[in-house]
Amino acid sequence: MATKIDEEQLMNDMLCRVKAVNNMPHDIRATLLDFKVDGYKVGKVRPGIAEMLCNMKTSVFELKQEDDSKKKSYLTLTSDAGTSSEERTKAVGTVMNQLRDEGFVKGWRDELFPVSENFYSPPVFLMERAAVTVLGVLEYGVHINGIVQESRQDEPKMWIGRRSATKSKFPGMLDHIVAGGQPSGISLIDNVVKECEEEAGIEESIVRAGVQSVGAISYENWDPKSDKLTRAVQFTYDLYLPPDFEPKPVDGEVQGFMLWTMDQVKESMAMDYADPIKPNCYVVIIDYLIRTGQISPDSNGFLDILRELRSGDCQ
Amino acid sequence: MATKIDEEQLMNDMLCRVKAVNNMPHDIRATLLDFKVDGYKVGKVRPGIAEMLCNMKTSVFELKQEDDSKKKSYLTLTSDAGTSSEERTKAVGTVMNQLRDEGFVKGWRDELFPVSENFYSPPVFLMERAAVTVLGVLEYGVHINGIVQESRQDEPKMWIGRRSATKSKFPGMLDHIVAGGQPSGISLIDNVVKECEEEAGIEESIVRAGVQSVGAISYENWDPKSDKLTRAVQFTYDLYLPPDFEPKPVDGEVQGFMLWTMDQVKESMAMDYADPIKPNCYVVIIDYLIRTGQISPDSNGFLDILRELRSGDCQ
Repeated sequence: MATKIDEEQLMNDMLCRVKAVNNMPHDIRATLLDFKVDGYKVGKVRPGIAEMLCNMKTSVFELKQEDDSKKKSYLTLTSDAGTSSEERTKAVGTVMNQLRDEGFVKGWRDELFPVSENFYSPPVFLMERAAVTVLGVLEYGVHINGIVQESRQDEPKMWIGRRSATKSKFPGMLDHIVAGGQPSGISLIDNVVKECEEEAGIEESIVRAGVQSVGAISYENWDPKSDKLTRAVQFTYDLYLPPDFEPKPVDGEVQGFMLWTMDQVKESMAMDYADPIKPNCYVVIIDYLIRTGQISPDSNGFLDILRELRSGDCQ
Repeated sequence: MATKIDEEQLMNDMLCRVKAVNNMPHDIRATLLDFKVDGYKVGKVRPGIAEMLCNMKTSVFELKQEDDSKKKSYLTLTSDAGTSSEERTKAVGTVMNQLRDEGFVKGWRDELFPVSENFYSPPVFLMERAAVTVLGVLEYGVHINGIVQESRQDEPKMWIGRRSATKSKFPGMLDHIVAGGQPSGISLIDNVVKECEEEAGIEESIVRAGVQSVGAISYENWDPKSDKLTRAVQFTYDLYLPPDFEPKPVDGEVQGFMLWTMDQVKESMAMDYADPIKPNCYVVIIDYLIRTGQISPDSNGFLDILRELRSGDCQ
């Protein structure tokens, strides 16, 4: 089934796949303003968006000058937004509702997402998940590589899911066996267990026996059309599944699964591949290929891919 | 033998261990000049070192202005250095010999190291290995985690070597089972095989059966005493060894080996640990602990360590 893969072409394709997700040109990065609450950096915005937010009727945003000699501006909340998480959640929500009504925020999910200084800190407020790219707030999620490999000597295979045709984002596209956003109030590993059960019918005992945390990947993307910033950290897991186990769609997010060889995974990297995987999955899969010796560091381009993978470190 | 390890303390210690090797303050980074040959960036230097090099009697160095509007300077070779790799090797060698005679370059090894735009490009010249920190040239090496773990369910153990008391650098200190610089003209994997045989008596068939490339780590260090820059990329490998195999010192670089549990590895991270491992090994080991799920991403500080690990990406 698999055709011989040209190594040089594969390295180029992988670099393109990373750049497609992790796309923040230097000149755009230089213009970004911090979005701060209580002095903590909690997001990043382009100047045009900051201005738009400050000029809205219902605005609770204002620009202030940094204290240092550089006199750079930063975006923050006005005192009208209140000082508690609850007050700010409500105040920012009013602004985001307006942006939804104006069509600037699409795909509203009615799901509140925590905004905080870092992943382990309590949130300074919550905001609608679909609107976080307006403020360049860092999104956290879990991505699971579903692997079948009985011993290290065996060639691993990877489970690939197909998203439901009714999903609001990337309908019908190929995907990881399981992936999901990280809600507040639940540990990462408990979220992994929960998502595995809900999305792929993998029971808890199988997950806990076969799962291993393997790090995190991060990426930052600037969308030239909307000027919004996607900034994400995906905690990554390898889940080793028994060879006789088959994942099953449970909650309707996925319509089916198939088990791919590493050659099939590599073939799908080609930029003209007819039925590609969801873009951010490629970054997680490339990290897997590197970590597990499926790509040789002797191949020209290996370090370029590694560097690009690590460039969007999302502080 | 192992005492219970405090998770919070461990995360702090690991962060300190990474920072100890990957130490490039922002204000120092901002002052660095590129060292260019034929328009390629091949190193970085502090302004004081650049000035010293240009003012030496035998100098073949000069400062030039960047073409762009920022008018920043860069260090390059004069036309007196010639245009071929051979001529430049000789010209730069004369300068480095003088710096050795003046005591500025220590630990001379009579080993020529390739200077190139990137790892996969042919060298623009060669220079004495002990002198590469003068020009902030990127050094490449291989580091091997020697692992005993029969199946994924087993707790892994790691072989730790003790360096010979007569080594010029870090004599008598704990070390990886095998590590070494990457010479030109040999592939990384062949170098791994060669070093494993020479340093630890691991025969080729055992290496090839158990070795897996797992990526690379990089670090940049500024030495405030000498103003020199250490910049390195270490290609990393996990070598799974049979449980009944014992590494043996062969070439006298190592005096002995011991097999540690992961608890012992983690205990040795403490900044006041009496008999620590060679500093750059900690960075490779922390990467191993993260990749193999020995540290939970639910632990506060996990992302700080990951970010710090990836900050010295050594372009």
